[in-house]
Amino acid sequence: MDLQPLLDAATFNDDGLVAAIAQDDATGDVLMLAYMNRETLRMTLETGVMTYWSRSRQKVWKKGETSGNVQKVKSAYVDCDGDALLFRIEQVGGAACHTGHRSCFYRRVEDGDLETVGDPVFDADSVYK
Amino acid sequence: MDLQPLLDAATFNDDGLVAAIAQDDATGDVLMLAYMNRETLRMTLETGVMTYWSRSRQKVWKKGETSGNVQKVKSAYVDCDGDALLFRIEQVGGAACHTGHRSCFYRRVEDGDLETVGDPVFDADSVYK
Repeated sequence: MDLQPLLDAATFNDDGLVAAIAQDDATGDVLMLAYMNRETLRMTLETGVMTYWSRSRQKVWKKGETSGNVQKVKSAYVDCDGDALLFRIEQVGGAACHTGHRSCFYRRVEDGDLETVGDPVFDADSVYK
Repeated sequence: MDLQPLLDAATFNDDGLVAAIAQDDATGDVLMLAYMNRETLRMTLETGVMTYWSRSRQKVWKKGETSGNVQKVKSAYVDCDGDALLFRIEQVGGAACHTGHRSCFYRRVEDGDLETVGDPVFDADSVYK
């Protein structure tokens, strides 16, 4: 696949990063938002597996490397000004969040408080030892 | 509504911003990604209408102020580490993008090239004079 069109369309910020949204291709649920640099965007496109840049650890973050819950790319989109990407993905293992929840957005504002939506799919403590 | 729990859960970056994803509550389509500071997050929660911080113009950006295509908040979520918010919204006018497309993510990678998905809902030139 020719990767250049998307690499050209992406606008990287001063830190060399572009925002990447992962959306469950089957359910439409937004699972997480993370960031990619040019290298990990290229890796994502080449391998078909979501690969982010970890800002906290300052290293390549192949999502699911530890938990096995990789994200397989089904389709990729770029927004009008290029500073955000959207990937529709298949979430292996059913959970994107390190807490074991399907989506990282598992806390919803409800009557002014934050309520947890749904139960964890896996036990985080047993996955990340 | 008590706004404090979400304001407390949100993690603002060095620029004082948190990422905000707008998702069409009816279709599940991801419409756009923009940013909010504490003030515009508070405005969004108080008014129920998506209000961003425009990084390019460095000012409060009440989405739809010019086009009339405001975004009404249906529900709000915060992610595990608080640096991204997800809002399920009703998109008045049917289009979130200033280009007239329903979603800002209207370009899809197809055979290595970028293909435009769908036709614009409105003519951008006649809306933004």
